[in-house]
This record gives sequence, structure tokens and C-alpha cells, in this order.
Amino acid sequence: MSKLPHIPTSIFSVMSQLANEHGAINLSQGFPNFPVDQRLLDITKQLTHENTHQYTPMAGLPSLLEKISQLTYEKYTRKTDVATEILVTAGATQGIYTTINTLIKHGDEVIILDPCYDSYEPSVLVAGGKPFRIALNEDYAPNFNRIEAGITSKTKMIIINNPHNPTGRIWKENEFEALETLLEKHPQIVLLSDEVYEYISFTQPHISINTRPKLRERAIIASSFGKSLHVTGWKIGYLIAPEKLMQEIKKVHQFLVFSVSSLSQHVIASYLDIVDFDAIAKMYLQKRDLFRSLLEGSRFTLLPCEGTYFQVVNYEKISSKNDTDFAKELITHHGVATIPISVFYEDGTDKRMLRFCFAKTDETLVAAAEKLRRV
Amino acid sequence: MSKLPHIPTSIFSVMSQLANEHGAINLSQGFPNFPVDQRLLDITKQLTHENTHQYTPMAGLPSLLEKISQLTYEKYTRKTDVATEILVTAGATQGIYTTINTLIKHGDEVIILDPCYDSYEPSVLVAGGKPFRIALNEDYAPNFNRIEAGITSKTKMIIINNPHNPTGRIWKENEFEALETLLEKHPQIVLLSDEVYEYISFTQPHISINTRPKLRERAIIASSFGKSLHVTGWKIGYLIAPEKLMQEIKKVHQFLVFSVSSLSQHVIASYLDIVDFDAIAKMYLQKRDLFRSLLEGSRFTLLPCEGTYFQVVNYEKISSKNDTDFAKELITHHGVATIPISVFYEDGTDKRMLRFCFAKTDETLVAAAEKLRRV
Ligand SMILES: CSCCC(=O)C(=O)O
Ligand SMILES: CSCCC(=O)C(=O)O
Repeated sequence: MSKLPHIPTSIFSVMSQLANEHGAINLSQGFPNFPVDQRLLDITKQLTHENTHQYTPMAGLPSLLEKISQLTYEKYTRKTDVATEILVTAGATQGIYTTINTLIKHGDEVIILDPCYDSYEPSVLVAGGKPFRIALNEDYAPNFNRIEAGITSKTKMIIINNPHNPTGRIWKENEFEALETLLEKHPQIVLLSDEVYEYISFTQPHISINTRPKLRERAIIASSFGKSLHVTGWKIGYLIAPEKLMQEIKKVHQFLVFSVSSLSQHVIASYLDIVDFDAIAKMYLQKRDLFRSLLEGSRFTLLPCEGTYFQVVNYEKISSKNDTDFAKELITHHGVATIPISVFYEDGTDKRMLRFCFAKTDETLVAAAEKLRRV
Repeated sequence: MSKLPHIPTSIFSVMSQLANEHGAINLSQGFPNFPVDQRLLDITKQLTHENTHQYTPMAGLPSLLEKISQLTYEKYTRKTDVATEILVTAGATQGIYTTINTLIKHGDEVIILDPCYDSYEPSVLVAGGKPFRIALNEDYAPNFNRIEAGITSKTKMIIINNPHNPTGRIWKENEFEALETLLEKHPQIVLLSDEVYEYISFTQPHISINTRPKLRERAIIASSFGKSLHVTGWKIGYLIAPEKLMQEIKKVHQFLVFSVSSLSQHVIASYLDIVDFDAIAKMYLQKRDLFRSLLEGSRFTLLPCEGTYFQVVNYEKISSKNDTDFAKELITHHGVATIPISVFYEDGTDKRMLRFCFAKTDETLVAAAEKLRRV
């Protein structure tokens, strides 16, 4: 009967709710707890009393599409085409779901790199497709031999996520080259590239699919203003794809949601004139470094964090409990909520790891670290 | 290749764009051109500077769910259950799409009454289902003999729309009774009831599925604040369904969009304390009567309008052109944009009819009618 018989409530909801119940510091679900830029709020206040409350055009507010196109130019020296290559979505999640449900048919296979964000697989299942998880290497690099071995004549899509949630890993130049070589042999495969943390990279510049001509001609890029501008609740994201793919995605989008929040689109279009993405990256770098240095005095082992606003740690020096039980204990006994990494694996692989969200005020990070050092 | 090979750009986008290009008065796409209630905007301004910008819980902001439950109590003396029976969606369109894509599987059949709103059929097609259009009677009443004849062992859903877009017709008590009798024989069929114009009924009270115990236990009701509160661009709607169905819909919603605009949800939750739905219905009644009386002096023949903010007219005394061509001529030669009724029919049946949206300022209606009387 059910299309998703084995899908429980999202771990992000579960952990946020548990955190609330126990008054724990919530470093689980990825959302900022610091104030939104005052200027963004002032623009909202101002535009609220303008004519910003009826349907925007289906693909997005024209001025916002224009700004997104400019953004791609500034970041990738490539001005994506406003009329044919951009779609504003109700968050990256809706963009990802719509892409999958447009392009994946009953019986099609989709390669998903394991571990990964939790929305990809159910989206494939609802479309009637077959998700195939291919394990990332120990260091979370893509393993092209395994990917190649997983490709069949029915494989229609590979989903990648860069910077990677939950591990923060960023794809390297040579990995893109290997993917290009691999895909040359498989013209039927499209690439869905989840780049919602594109503005949050620390150890090296994030390389977007948008800068790889061989890949982008068959790729859909998903991004999100919710992450970059600290307004996760606004649910404004966007897709970039070549016209031929975008045409089909727009057809489904038109009947899935038609258009997205008009007021938010107006505000973001205006705010993009003044926002400084470098400052945002710098702020997150400081938060990462602060949180890592605060945890040095603890018994948690820090994994590398190249991007995103997530820090993964190993806790095997502290406990031999499985990660879900240990995460619950951290909430109930120590007052800090996290996400157990096993939920990102298809088979629930448990490496005694947790994910912390450090998109929080310095005070919150200091208070959380104090509790964590006592564990 | 395409899941929707025969779907062009939505007629609503086409006509609104054509109207803009020709500076025509736009009575095509359904959206108000009068100002939003000042108090709604003031609440928005006020709540903008509060903590209203991060993810709400997946099913909706708790205070908004509570208000929706109260609304159902006031309107139907039935308090829907906040935790299990309500889902806030990115507009009714997303609610309808999500319902269909949750419950309809590859090969399932769905009965859709013809003519109808344009999103139902593509949503069924993307799910891999088979839409079956059953013609409404001449007066747009449901024809239960034809519906019964259209049911097979694969029929999983019947979609109804009340008040009806485009014709404004409202279901009668005896029609609900006939549907109840019919469905008793078919326990596998669920009902999707699109009630987005529930607050806009003129000739008789709108009867919601929510007031029919035998139907609501297998029904999903879709509604929309965009229509009722004149903020079509906000894209805030909701679904009401029994827990068993809602559980499955929430699973898909969680991965389709996760949550919807936090700020808009906060504002609507607060505004529902003061909004007067009776006043809104009265305002639309006045607009309907004004527009109808203005058109009496024209050569258009008015059809009945029992609800919604749409007026259908027949123009065969004026022109023998097909309705799409005549609608285009009305824009280019007479400066008024409408929707040709043929687009609501599966086979494009053309009865020389047009749909006017009268959710406009009185000045706009007067100016449009002046042009229309000259046709
Ligand atoms: C949509 S809730 C999840 C937010 C998020 O991206 C994460 O915590 O990984
Ligand atoms: C989503 S655009 C269509 C608006 C509407 O409901 C209509 O005009 O029928």
C-alpha cells in the first residue's frame, strides 16, 4: 500500500523535538540560531507594503532570476540564461524532489553515494525508481570503480552532494575529471548535484558543476538561499540546468507548486544587491575554528571539516553504545542534541559518530562545548 | 522520454503574459488586484523582526495547525485533530500534487470530472497513474451513472472540486448522498476534494466533505489561504485527511518540501484571530453582482455563478471563432484578458465560452465591462 513503507519521521524532526522536550542545546537539525541580517529584515518590512503578494511567474520572479544569473557569473564566470536555465523552488528539497520525479520513471535506477542526506532515496522511491547506494571511500571521497560497477543500462541518474552533508567533504578537481571520463561512456545518465552549501567552504574553493562544461550539459544543480542567507524557514532555493532538462522540470514544477513565496522572492532579489557571501564564508570559518578548538579539550575525536556548517566527531573513546542511543543519552544526560551519522547510511552503518551543527551563536557553541567536555 | 509530453505552458501563465504585453485588463489568471488587508501587512511587518525565519515543524507551525483546527470547528462543528489530520502545504496545488503522488501508483486509475482545473491530470500522469475524465452534465452537475460506469477494479481515487473552477458550481446535498451510496460499493477508492474556494459561495452554503462522515473517512480536503486571504503569492494552503491517509502524505511531504514559509505561517496564524470570512464572502458577492449587472448591457450571455471568483460567459452571439482565438482577439483588440473554457476540457471541447476573474477592484471591473460592452 505505502510508497514509503520503511520511512519513519525524519531524524531532523525527531532530534529537534527531543531537544525541545529536554531543554537541550540543539546542534542537531541544520539551522542557525543567530539573528538574521537586520538589513534583510528591513527590506522585508519595506516590501511588505508594496505589491508583492500575488503569484509570481511560474519559474520565479524575473528580478530574482536575473540576480541568480548574475551570481553564477560572479562565482563561475558563467551567466546562466534567465529564461531557460533557472527555476526558483520552495527550498532545495523541493528542487531535488521535482528533478527526480520529472526525470526518473518506474524501474529507472539512480546511483546515490552512501552516506548521504536523507531526502534523495525516498524521492527516488516515490517516483517508482530504484535507488542504488554506492559507498564513499573511508575518507568520503567518491570511489569511481565502485560507481562504474554499479552502472547498468537502466541507470538514469547519479546524485552527488558537494560540499557533503553530513561529512563536510568537498570534491577535488581530479574527482571531477574522473567523473567526466566515466560519464563519457554513459550518455543516458544525468547528474543531480546538490550544492546547497556552496558558499560555505573552508579548506579549498568549492568547485561547482557549473564550472565543468562536460558535466553541466547533463547536470541539474540544486542550491538554497535558506542556507546561505540564514533563513531556512523561508524555503527559497533554485535549480540550474540546461534548457532541455529544465523544460521538463518546469512542466512538473508548474503542477507541483506552480510558484513560490512572492514576498520572499522580492526580498531576496533586493537583498542580493548588498549581501557579501565572502563575509558569510568567513563567519562560518570562524565558527568552525571556534567550535573545533573548544572541543579539543574533550574526549571526542574531530574529523576533518572542509565545508558545510556541520562537524562530525567520533565518540568511541567515550562510549560503546550505538550512535542513536548515544545521541539520545547526550540529549537526556548532557543537554546537547546532535544527529547520529548512521541515519545517513542505507544500512544504518554505525561508526560511533555524531554530527554537530555549528551554525549557532558563539555563546551557544561555548555553552555546548562546556557540556561536551564533561562527557 | 518526457513524463508530460503534451503539456504546454499553463494557460494562466500564457494569458497573464499576453495581457501584460498588450496592456490589457487581466481578468484571466485568478488573483486579486485589490490591496491586501492592511492589518495582515502590519502583522507581517511586526513579525518580521521576531524569530520567524527558521524551519517550522514539518507538518506546519503548531499555532497555525491549532487555528486551522478551530476553523474547521467553527465552520463544520468538527475540530480536526492537530497532530494527525492537518498538513500545511505550499499552496493547495502542492497539497493536491503531494496527495496524488502519495496515493497513486503506476497503473492506478483516477476519475477526474470534466471540465476541471488543469493541475489534476498532469499530477496523476507524473505518478504513473491513468486519469479518466468523466463529463459533468450540461449544468456541470456530477453524473453518477457515468461515474459508476467509469469505475474499474484499478480505480483508486475520484477528484472533485467544490466550488468548481471554472464554472463556480456548488455541489448539492443530494449529490453528496449519491456519492456516498456509490462509494459504499467501492471501499478502495479515496476522494480528493479541492475546496480552495470554500469561503466564496453565493447562492447556498458550501458543503464541505468535512461535514459528511461517510465521505471524510476516506477523503483528503485541499484548501488555500492564498485564495481566502487575497495572498495568492504566499503559497500557503493545507490538507485535511484522516490519520491513516495523512500519515502517508506526510511521509512524502517531508521529502518533497519538508516545510513551508515560516514567516507566512506565523503571520496567518496571528491574522486568523481577526479575519472575518463572512465579510470576505460578502465582498465577493458584491463584486459578482456588480460585474454581472455591468455585463447585462453587453452581448455576452452570463452563466450562473454560485461560488468562486470566476464568471463564465458564452459569446456565440458575438463571434464564431474558437474560444482560444476569441480570447486572444479580446486581449489584442479589446484590451481584456480572459481564460478560454476549452483548456479545462481533456479534449478541448469548445462551447464558445470564456472565464472572467472578478477578484478585482470595482474600478477594474467597471473599466473592463466598459470595454466588453463595446465588443
Ligand atoms: C530539512 S531539515 C534538515 C536540515 C538539514 O539540511 C540538515 O540538518 O541536514
Ligand atoms: C496557479 S495560477 C491559476 C490560478 C487559478 O487558480 C486559476 O486562475 O484558476
